[in-house]
Amino acid sequence: SGAPTVADVGPAVVLGANQYGKAEVRLVRVTRDSARHEIEDLTVTTQLRGEALADSYLVGDNAKVVATDTQKNTVYAFARDGVGAPEDFLTRLADHFTGEFDWITGGRFGALAHSWGRIVTDASGETSEGGVGHDHAFVRGGTETRTALVVVDGDRRWVVAGLEDLTVLKSTGSEFHGFPRDRYTTLVETDDRILATSVTARWRYTDETVEAARTPGAVDFDALYERVRAVLLATFADVHSLALQQTLYAMGRRAIEEVDAVAEVRFSMPNKHHFLVDLAPFGLDNPGEVFYAADRPYGLIDGAVIRAGVAEAPAAWDAVTPFV
Amino acid sequence: SGAPTVADVGPAVVLGANQYGKAEVRLVRVTRDSARHEIEDLTVTTQLRGEALADSYLVGDNAKVVATDTQKNTVYAFARDGVGAPEDFLTRLADHFTGEFDWITGGRFGALAHSWGRIVTDASGETSEGGVGHDHAFVRGGTETRTALVVVDGDRRWVVAGLEDLTVLKSTGSEFHGFPRDRYTTLVETDDRILATSVTARWRYTDETVEAARTPGAVDFDALYERVRAVLLATFADVHSLALQQTLYAMGRRAIEEVDAVAEVRFSMPNKHHFLVDLAPFGLDNPGEVFYAADRPYGLIDGAVIRAGVAEAPAAWDAVTPFV
Amino acid sequence: SGAPTVADVGPAVVLGANQYGKAEVRLVRVTRDSARHEIEDLTVTTQLRGEALADSYLVGDNAKVVATDTQKNTVYAFARDGVGAPEDFLTRLADHFTGEFDWITGGRFGALAHSWGRIVTDASGETSEGGVGHDHAFVRGGTETRTALVVVDGDRRWVVAGLEDLTVLKSTGSEFHGFPRDRYTTLVETDDRILATSVTARWRYTDETVEAARTPGAVDFDALYERVRAVLLATFADVHSLALQQTLYAMGRRAIEEVDAVAEVRFSMPNKHHFLVDLAPFGLDNPGEVFYAADRPYGLIDGAVIRAGVAEAPAAWDAVTPFV
Amino acid sequence: SGAPTVADVGPAVVLGANQYGKAEVRLVRVTRDSARHEIEDLTVTTQLRGEALADSYLVGDNAKVVATDTQKNTVYAFARDGVGAPEDFLTRLADHFTGEFDWITGGRFGALAHSWGRIVTDASGETSEGGVGHDHAFVRGGTETRTALVVVDGDRRWVVAGLEDLTVLKSTGSEFHGFPRDRYTTLVETDDRILATSVTARWRYTDETVEAARTPGAVDFDALYERVRAVLLATFADVHSLALQQTLYAMGRRAIEEVDAVAEVRFSMPNKHHFLVDLAPFGLDNPGEVFYAADRPYGLIDGAVIRAGVAEAPAAWDAVTPFV
Repeated sequence: SGAPTVADVGPAVVLGANQYGKAEVRLVRVTRDSARHEIEDLTVTTQLRGEALADSYLVGDNAKVVATDTQKNTVYAFARDGVGAPEDFLTRLADHFTGEFDWITGGRFGALAHSWGRIVTDASGETSEGGVGHDHAFVRGGTETRTALVVVDGDRRWVVAGLEDLTVLKSTGSEFHGFPRDRYTTLVETDDRILATSVTARWRYTDETVEAARTPGAVDFDALYERVRAVLLATFADVHSLALQQTLYAMGRRAIEEVDAVAEVRFSMPNKHHFLVDLAPFGLDNPGEVFYAADRPYGLIDGAVIRAGVAEAPAAWDAVTPFV
Repeated sequence: SGAPTVADVGPAVVLGANQYGKAEVRLVRVTRDSARHEIEDLTVTTQLRGEALADSYLVGDNAKVVATDTQKNTVYAFARDGVGAPEDFLTRLADHFTGEFDWITGGRFGALAHSWGRIVTDASGETSEGGVGHDHAFVRGGTETRTALVVVDGDRRWVVAGLEDLTVLKSTGSEFHGFPRDRYTTLVETDDRILATSVTARWRYTDETVEAARTPGAVDFDALYERVRAVLLATFADVHSLALQQTLYAMGRRAIEEVDAVAEVRFSMPNKHHFLVDLAPFGLDNPGEVFYAADRPYGLIDGAVIRAGVAEAPAAWDAVTPFV
Repeated sequence: SGAPTVADVGPAVVLGANQYGKAEVRLVRVTRDSARHEIEDLTVTTQLRGEALADSYLVGDNAKVVATDTQKNTVYAFARDGVGAPEDFLTRLADHFTGEFDWITGGRFGALAHSWGRIVTDASGETSEGGVGHDHAFVRGGTETRTALVVVDGDRRWVVAGLEDLTVLKSTGSEFHGFPRDRYTTLVETDDRILATSVTARWRYTDETVEAARTPGAVDFDALYERVRAVLLATFADVHSLALQQTLYAMGRRAIEEVDAVAEVRFSMPNKHHFLVDLAPFGLDNPGEVFYAADRPYGLIDGAVIRAGVAEAPAAWDAVTPFV
Repeated sequence: SGAPTVADVGPAVVLGANQYGKAEVRLVRVTRDSARHEIEDLTVTTQLRGEALADSYLVGDNAKVVATDTQKNTVYAFARDGVGAPEDFLTRLADHFTGEFDWITGGRFGALAHSWGRIVTDASGETSEGGVGHDHAFVRGGTETRTALVVVDGDRRWVVAGLEDLTVLKSTGSEFHGFPRDRYTTLVETDDRILATSVTARWRYTDETVEAARTPGAVDFDALYERVRAVLLATFADVHSLALQQTLYAMGRRAIEEVDAVAEVRFSMPNKHHFLVDLAPFGLDNPGEVFYAADRPYGLIDGAVIRAGVAEAPAAWDAVTPFV
């Protein structure tokens, strides 16, 4: 992962890839330049890497260990100057840790961004989505969580955006047939089923985009996020699906085709089964109307979609502990 | 609870209140009368009561036990005719079980309603909230869950609506001071703090409303839900808060004042603490901008607000197992 | 609930039952009188009641509001003198709050107790359950959580012990048949099925026990807990079950019969369905061997079992917000 | 990951690594050869890989898609012949899918194993850990979950065992000092703190072990699991810790040194902070006795420990969607 630190410590055992840091720092930032406040709400994780850290593992020597408590303090202190797009905030943190401590040669800096909308009120107490909203009262919005990740290894850096728990459903426009049948196959072919999934997606930005982002204001990561999210949603809706695999690929392909900054997209998409209930024992038909939504098991479709010609970037994706 | 069944079974032990049923039946209903589909998504729990059920507890005699599997089947079969407002659907189920089986004299019928919105797309793949939305592609919406409960005891019935996990925050307009100080008090008084909570509310409708609802279409429970939710949100936003208790009471009071159908409201509202981070060690001030959002412990404010003159209805609230 | 505070505040609206406090204070106590440490691990919730608290709801006057932060501090300060049985610790807290502040006339004091066992090691690194265990290294134990609750209303007090998530399964010795059949019944009768549940139980101690416990050391709540837990487990195992209802009642009955201190027991027990998989399509039989363990829906059996002759104690069970 | 399937589908976009399958198949297996039953409880996930699967992604052609429903059926059908060690069961599944369908050239086969113990009863209803236990009544045991993973890529295969949520705590024998101090450092050095973590560990078995396991009965994966688990626990207890990093490394090192079959171990270990509560404002000292157990943030220490000389095996660890 990132910058594996391998140190021979004897005849038998070596230290492999490692990293350490502070996880899930809960940061809420209020911007109150005017009576109309803004809020930003992040859960930040910083993890540092560097060969010099090996001694903390091997002999408990902490001389190079920037305390995780210090990392937490730094997150809060940096928020004093504002947060902005999570990708930019994480980059500021990454630059700080790798710049301030010469033995910190890389790391993995991640955030979840929790969305809030303004509460909209009028004299009658009614909420109208068209309203301008309250100056300092907010309600948690959306169902999905935005994610951001900055990975640094020496002079290299990667920026990966994403989202989790974007739950979507099509009540028609989905088929599944033509699959092979063996001794264990009982599934009936269908040309009309519910297709439902909870999208987890991560997209890596191109090296050009990451390079451009070194100039403050040159890349609008918030706008890019909104654009990719919209494309993913629209593609899920528009594609007549013959398999969830096909839908997945189409979502990635269209994101790459429509958003130049995207180098590749990886998805993990459960097929959340909705089974048509057999009402015949009760003397009723069921023309695609009444469904049982099952919890487990579920299908699970994983896949990567990559812009042709871009170099692979395993370091952006590798985790020391990929325990999925 | 409801209809406690007490049977003396010897010198030592009696059976107290009891109920049984099927919990968390996951029901998705697609209405496809036209190309423009509608979906309804409920998690339904039915629990039956009646003195004749005692023998299943006392000696394992199931002659009166409407199987929980039968209850599940009934939920799905009834959905074939449409769902509608969850309060109406639960009432249909309650009427069925107490009507079909004369020894079932009451019960507790509950649902969670999960909201979905239409995915809005245009040629460019952009989502516009102003759009009409896709005919059959949906995205899970909102952050809160709507709840509905119908309790029946013989000829009596109660209808309780509610919501959970409505997470709201005010970045100012909240004070807390004037509390007593003892040996264990260290909290500093404040005239400006973040106020954040995740509202759980349940409101019971008046007997008149419940009676009126026996006429199909006479009461629009969906509209009532939207109206109360809007009042709760607006009141949270508008009240300048001196204590979360005060905000809670104001929310209930205004719901009762503005919505005639509401007899009483009960709330459980955690005070989700946001602590101002001390940045002084880093040479920085922090004028109400950078906060640590804590998980635990949290304040917990519970309270009921009741329309003057309405009769109490403990049977609507009692649970056999109130294990909060 | 407990001490409902009802205040008329105008023509329209009154304040009903209410309480407030600090929830989920995470307390770990190390006793290090010798090299052989002991640890206690509790999650404590305190909630105070009293008519004088109404003004905090009605007008935001906090003059009587013992800050929840103060409540938290008190929990930690009291732990300095030791914890002991959670029922005793909660009683000390209850006595303090109702004694120190004369307007606090009651409350609800609860705890979850998390169990730890000693790590057992020998020179070879093997763990032997028979060993004496490490002096200061522990591993989280058990699958269930012990609960304790002390409710106070003026001079009255109740003590309710319990457990959650005690997951048990019988692979035979369970039948289910003889239930009524209607249009919606498809369930097949069985004389051999898996019976599995996750027991939530709460048992209230007799008034005599609660009174006796005012003398320090007179009642050993830890021993009582272990005794009731053992009876519940043994009864689940020993009873040949014709219905989960029957098993529930037998568990409560035997707890009351064998433990004099128990006045009543309330249970909530899901019937965690294990469905025999139909292997016939694959040319295989399935003589009770291969099962699918379903998540939802599940049966849900609730019931109370009461010692004959004991007075009812609704105040021990009522919650301001019984949102089950 | 495993067998990435890359297909050029035009000028712009290619399909990268992918896999699909059925996740979280809940399997309970009862062995009832005698009155003394045995139970096995697994949650199984199968994911298949192969270049021929690309067409399902690219054009929705399912001719090569072994339905995830078929995968589920296969899991249950194979359980008819017994389960055994999860590593062996997963290997049987892997061999089946790659053998039966020549275009399935690899995959990822995982399981969680849930532990159960026998309920021990005697006539008095007491549970005695020394007893032989009930023939067919069981209680869920342990706090951690055992994991197993078999990864196949053509002729290569890897077996990775592991555990999750093994929560351990030392009440002394842990120091943390000597770390660098910068502008953002406020942490006080300590020579006595609580050290607590929830161990997630995965260990890969050597190629020799995997090869030997092709002979039925030649490798006892259950015994290996128990042995490694015991070493991890004992090492956590025995090591006087100067850093959680040091404890992590020692745990991995000793597992490799004591268990020949282990090629490498990867850990993810949160540092679950227990903060000494400042009781001075209440006139009390706190000599390491009263602690606040915090939820978030937490330290997070990741690391791999590798037997010297073994070849790296990235394919055993790579996931298509390493979204940690």
